[in-house]
Amino acid sequence: MTTIKDSVHDHIAVEGVAEALLDTPPVQRLRRIAQLGTVTLVYPSANHTRFEHSLGVYHLADEALGHLGIEGQKAERVRAAALLHDVGHSPYSHNVEAVIYRETGKYHDDVHDLLDRGEVARVLADHDLDHDAVADLVAGDGELGQLVSGELDVDRMDYLVRDAHHTGVPYGTIDHERLIRELRFVDGDLVLDEGNVQTAESLLLARALMNPTVYRHHVARIAKTMLRRGTERLLEATDTDPAELRRWDDSDLLVSLRRTDATAGYAHRLTERRLYKRAIWAEMTAVPDELLAMDHAEIREEERAIADAANVDADAVLLDVPGEPSMPESSSRVVVNGEVRGLGEQSTLVTALRAAQRDQWRLGVYAPEAVADRVGERAIRVLGLEPDGAMVRDARPGVHATLDEFN
Amino acid sequence: MTTIKDSVHDHIAVEGVAEALLDTPPVQRLRRIAQLGTVTLVYPSANHTRFEHSLGVYHLADEALGHLGIEGQKAERVRAAALLHDVGHSPYSHNVEAVIYRETGKYHDDVHDLLDRGEVARVLADHDLDHDAVADLVAGDGELGQLVSGELDVDRMDYLVRDAHHTGVPYGTIDHERLIRELRFVDGDLVLDEGNVQTAESLLLARALMNPTVYRHHVARIAKTMLRRGTERLLEATDTDPAELRRWDDSDLLVSLRRTDATAGYAHRLTERRLYKRAIWAEMTAVPDELLAMDHAEIREEERAIADAANVDADAVLLDVPGEPSMPESSSRVVVNGEVRGLGEQSTLVTALRAAQRDQWRLGVYAPEAVADRVGERAIRVLGLEPDGAMVRDARPGVHATLDEFN
Amino acid sequence: MTTIKDSVHDHIAVEGVAEALLDTPPVQRLRRIAQLGTVTLVYPSANHTRFEHSLGVYHLADEALGHLGIEGQKAERVRAAALLHDVGHSPYSHNVEAVIYRETGKYHDDVHDLLDRGEVARVLADHDLDHDAVADLVAGDGELGQLVSGELDVDRMDYLVRDAHHTGVPYGTIDHERLIRELRFVDGDLVLDEGNVQTAESLLLARALMNPTVYRHHVARIAKTMLRRGTERLLEATDTDPAELRRWDDSDLLVSLRRTDATAGYAHRLTERRLYKRAIWAEMTAVPDELLAMDHAEIREEERAIADAANVDADAVLLDVPGEPSMPESSSRVVVNGEVRGLGEQSTLVTALRAAQRDQWRLGVYAPEAVADRVGERAIRVLGLEPDGAMVRDARPGVHATLDEFN
Amino acid sequence: MTTIKDSVHDHIAVEGVAEALLDTPPVQRLRRIAQLGTVTLVYPSANHTRFEHSLGVYHLADEALGHLGIEGQKAERVRAAALLHDVGHSPYSHNVEAVIYRETGKYHDDVHDLLDRGEVARVLADHDLDHDAVADLVAGDGELGQLVSGELDVDRMDYLVRDAHHTGVPYGTIDHERLIRELRFVDGDLVLDEGNVQTAESLLLARALMNPTVYRHHVARIAKTMLRRGTERLLEATDTDPAELRRWDDSDLLVSLRRTDATAGYAHRLTERRLYKRAIWAEMTAVPDELLAMDHAEIREEERAIADAANVDADAVLLDVPGEPSMPESSSRVVVNGEVRGLGEQSTLVTALRAAQRDQWRLGVYAPEAVADRVGERAIRVLGLEPDGAMVRDARPGVHATLDEFN
Repeated sequence: MTTIKDSVHDHIAVEGVAEALLDTPPVQRLRRIAQLGTVTLVYPSANHTRFEHSLGVYHLADEALGHLGIEGQKAERVRAAALLHDVGHSPYSHNVEAVIYRETGKYHDDVHDLLDRGEVARVLADHDLDHDAVADLVAGDGELGQLVSGELDVDRMDYLVRDAHHTGVPYGTIDHERLIRELRFVDGDLVLDEGNVQTAESLLLARALMNPTVYRHHVARIAKTMLRRGTERLLEATDTDPAELRRWDDSDLLVSLRRTDATAGYAHRLTERRLYKRAIWAEMTAVPDELLAMDHAEIREEERAIADAANVDADAVLLDVPGEPSMPESSSRVVVNGEVRGLGEQSTLVTALRAAQRDQWRLGVYAPEAVADRVGERAIRVLGLEPDGAMVRDARPGVHATLDEFN
Repeated sequence: MTTIKDSVHDHIAVEGVAEALLDTPPVQRLRRIAQLGTVTLVYPSANHTRFEHSLGVYHLADEALGHLGIEGQKAERVRAAALLHDVGHSPYSHNVEAVIYRETGKYHDDVHDLLDRGEVARVLADHDLDHDAVADLVAGDGELGQLVSGELDVDRMDYLVRDAHHTGVPYGTIDHERLIRELRFVDGDLVLDEGNVQTAESLLLARALMNPTVYRHHVARIAKTMLRRGTERLLEATDTDPAELRRWDDSDLLVSLRRTDATAGYAHRLTERRLYKRAIWAEMTAVPDELLAMDHAEIREEERAIADAANVDADAVLLDVPGEPSMPESSSRVVVNGEVRGLGEQSTLVTALRAAQRDQWRLGVYAPEAVADRVGERAIRVLGLEPDGAMVRDARPGVHATLDEFN
Repeated sequence: MTTIKDSVHDHIAVEGVAEALLDTPPVQRLRRIAQLGTVTLVYPSANHTRFEHSLGVYHLADEALGHLGIEGQKAERVRAAALLHDVGHSPYSHNVEAVIYRETGKYHDDVHDLLDRGEVARVLADHDLDHDAVADLVAGDGELGQLVSGELDVDRMDYLVRDAHHTGVPYGTIDHERLIRELRFVDGDLVLDEGNVQTAESLLLARALMNPTVYRHHVARIAKTMLRRGTERLLEATDTDPAELRRWDDSDLLVSLRRTDATAGYAHRLTERRLYKRAIWAEMTAVPDELLAMDHAEIREEERAIADAANVDADAVLLDVPGEPSMPESSSRVVVNGEVRGLGEQSTLVTALRAAQRDQWRLGVYAPEAVADRVGERAIRVLGLEPDGAMVRDARPGVHATLDEFN
Repeated sequence: MTTIKDSVHDHIAVEGVAEALLDTPPVQRLRRIAQLGTVTLVYPSANHTRFEHSLGVYHLADEALGHLGIEGQKAERVRAAALLHDVGHSPYSHNVEAVIYRETGKYHDDVHDLLDRGEVARVLADHDLDHDAVADLVAGDGELGQLVSGELDVDRMDYLVRDAHHTGVPYGTIDHERLIRELRFVDGDLVLDEGNVQTAESLLLARALMNPTVYRHHVARIAKTMLRRGTERLLEATDTDPAELRRWDDSDLLVSLRRTDATAGYAHRLTERRLYKRAIWAEMTAVPDELLAMDHAEIREEERAIADAANVDADAVLLDVPGEPSMPESSSRVVVNGEVRGLGEQSTLVTALRAAQRDQWRLGVYAPEAVADRVGERAIRVLGLEPDGAMVRDARPGVHATLDEFN
């Protein structure tokens, strides 16, 4: 047994297949993938990694299995999946996931091709675990897959408290011990036991407050868009294999961006925190429906059109159109008066939070500070934004830190 | 300057009028008034007092004054009011406040008659502060009164984080530093500056989650009702002056209840945690409107009617009818795009939380375990409850601790 | 199973005999015994109770038993002893323990006569546990008694972290999880496993820093001496049975002191924090050896002699002579290179800390502020103190809080 | 004013010269220098950076200046020095500092040549601050230099609590607020005010416990030695300019080590945590005096001699000879009875801790696991170690995590 000290869960005891997996290169690589990518540019203490998070998820999974009375190989499989659940992440995790997906067809939780080879495959085989079964759990498939990836998964429980601990933003501080203790399986569904409507709501609310304050803070979004565009350019300008880039760590990507002429500009801006500014910051009501449906090629085309109209370099315009807000926690299930109900049926908060998420949604157009005004003006016309839409423009100077507006 | 170590705010520096007030008997008495009264029977570590809370409120008021740029006598008056804001509490604070109000006409924030005499009056005079002006601030009157008692007051900010720290329930852990830093006065109204809709919502949500989990946990409510009824009986059975009882501390009341025959029964049950159980736990939809409008005498009459019908002792039935849920934080004000708006206009959450509070509202009838079933059956008829109303009865055995259902 | 939320250990699951013991009056009484007595007059947030501490000790004992692989009735007996280990405390715990011992011959860990009757005896019998065997464990007897009361006991581990949490003084924040995990039995001795010299030292150092800062802060000592003398007077002036007083709670004692003429003076001073001041604060080198050997009657006689010499009331002089400093943690045992060694043999720190404790030792003479100077002068002569001894007198005005000098 | 959220100090307000310095490349670079280098291989959550630490040091310096009543340009200069105090660190901070020093003659606190050019110089000039004067403060020169770099500096206060927060090891949790509040200048010396012998001791003890547990954990030392040797080889094998390497960030160095044939072996071992093991782990008493006096060239020669004797590759033997233990905190000064005394005169602990540090000192010889035994045997002879010296050899298999022995 190996015991590891963690700043969130204190001592984590790692045994069995998990202990053997710990020393494999794909798991050790997670030490060099930042959990929150560009969020550290807003919250400077948020430098935690996918490795410590994966240990935390393993730990909570192990506790949940104990409370649920699940043992033997079934439990080992879940523990392996918990520790491995993030090995599919590319450098800077979600920040460049969309690029990787377009190029390789793989999201981060699609790990069948990563677990069937090398040391990980060997360790799983040594412990009589089927690598495909473990990869299925990582993808959230099957009854026990819900524990690893689902509305009430231990992944979510770990990252909320861990991100709160490291950013200093208290909103994510849920009562994860209680959540773990109250999990039950009813007819194959993972649910919270009687008396936990509030517990389920607290999870939902923690996410609802962390989203705008941390995960979707506009400064993190700007930096992420720059990093993403830089990564695309790197793939265009060099013969880097996207499948290989997916296996890099943050250092590989950062140094490669710096050492490639086509991307050095983005890299130095990110490195020195000379970020683009918001030329446009538009609410959903100001945005024509067809913009929401654009694919990546169309977005790039709009960027070029805006750049042309504003007479600036093509790289100087970044268009950031987030997807429709989703809220997976809202479909979590609780037992109420002996019946399993969806939280959405039970809680008046769910509808309100869904509406709040749409209210907080923003389309962004980003550009270097010197040309942001000009780009903003042209973007309104090119994109057909409703010029009287609330907050279409954001005139305030770039902000450094957390106390910025995010509404 | 006196520096005091606090488990929530670390070092608190106390100077000026506050330092002089610290050593007066009315402030020292707060050391012996529990902040959360009977909540300690649910959360055993919640033994913090009104004294440490008052220090915390003073500290946050002082910080807020600094950020708002308020100085001189105006600021000293607020600091005095902050430290004194709870001297009007009777033993067990809110637990017996209703009894004291019926007997003396005074709520806890009505302190004009407490500040105009004795050492407190002397200290205020020494510092050229008018005692009535300070008492006005405690009551929330005037522009600066909003800081001491209002929707965005520092009282609320301290108790949420302090109650979270001591109960162990994380939901109250707001970002009080940010709240303090973002306060502004606009046209005489205390508001949160631009970019703080989420900050305001977080305050509302913290309260919304702490309410059912901590403040209105049914075990705390049962114990509170027993304590309240015991205090009434004490006033009936002895010649205790209600105005004097208001000035007692928790020990005085507890020992007096124990040493008086008419109340020793309640006292020992509270002391040994042999609490009454829920005979009825009814949602608002199951309760006839007229019950909601009953005054205290009518409630006592209903209790007797139920006791008669169930053939039990009059003291064996306690009827607990909370007022309509209120949500003062929902009227807090934030600056949005340069205008002051009520949070209710701006946040889709407010309506949802209001509805949630009505959903969580419960009428309780409590009785000793042995007769709870019988009392419950009769109470349905006597009170005219809707017998099919959700959760009219609660068959589950008494619970000890926190993981109990509260929906 | 009952699950209780604790502000230090989060969720504590209580089952078996411990769950049944929880609801007995002797355990519930611990809710009303302050853990640190008069220390709250120095650290206002230190209002935690023996009840929450006992839950914590039960929790750590349960964890330690798990790591040590001890099961069955043997383990149940330890769990019962852990929860019951403090039921022998009188009001204000250690503050009046000496008085109780003189009158009843019982220290707080002598609980044979408390466990052999009433509900506790019934519960123990129901669980086939011998009450004397449990009381032996509380006294630290036998191999497993070391876990409950010994140099490496879980009592110490809980109170250090709990006292740190509630006072806000960080020095007690040991790594209790590691201590628990590293416990082993070697030839009947409870020891720390290989590689834990530092771990053992950290326990010793935590105590060494908490002692002067918290446990023996001079303000807490003054108040304790006043409380102790008040309790003696109460027993002299009334027909209170000392054995009964031992079973009171803090409220009983405080209210009785207030309502008895002979002790009301002390009670009001304690209540309003108008404490005596240090007339003398003498280092060990300034104190004649025979003073250190005085029994209680001789101390009282010296007080009277000083009072006579200073021409003040007998109650106005309090002489406080602590025992020789002890350091039980210094005899804890660790495995070093495969052998069990006493920490004292292994750690150069132990001797140094022992010397430091003697350096910090102080004899105190306390008196009301107005007469403190006069009392101090006479006390030097009456007690035969070395007038040039360091810090024989302390001229500084009474201090309120934590940032006071304690050297 | 910029306000930044920090996980240790909550909100940090940055203004004046510090706000302007924040956005300069040398300060932004600190975001990519790990505070504890290879310690993250032992404590996986220790991924905090020199950037957040520098913000913390700035914050504590600002607080200390306030308490000391220092204002104006004098204070601005200290604030600038606090924020800039670590810009001289090379990648992985102390881990490769020795290499950089040998090559460039610069330690990390020698920053005159970094502050006199570029944006930093421009910002300092804009604020009328002399860059050499600021660099002097960073080096600890002058009265106010003691605040930035000295026995009682704010650097130490920040890193102890920050390292405790991020590793999860509580020993560093000092009462930094108290330390800051008690600082005074007496005759040009920075000292702690009356009543703070314990406070000074607590600082010393925190370091004494953090050293073996965190900073000098043998796994971190092995990895550091590998990284250092890798860096030397990189300079030998490529035309990298050492002065330029000094300005790299962690990513630059890691990727360069990976992409250079001569160093890829070390890089991959570090990346995959396949570290060398201890072939020798010798106490000071087992080590001939002349070994302690060896310079770098001699150490490299001994390595080669051992490698030859063991018939392994030259890169397979690493000799790690730490300097004599020092304890700067032991010369901190406190006011005792009105006079300034060195803590060493006053505290019996200082001598004990000094002895403890020598006891904990170890010479290490590291080698790949497969050849560690052979290398160990030969190293004893080559180095002339005392073969019966305690713990000359360490037979235990490599350890993963924190619960390893370090005595």
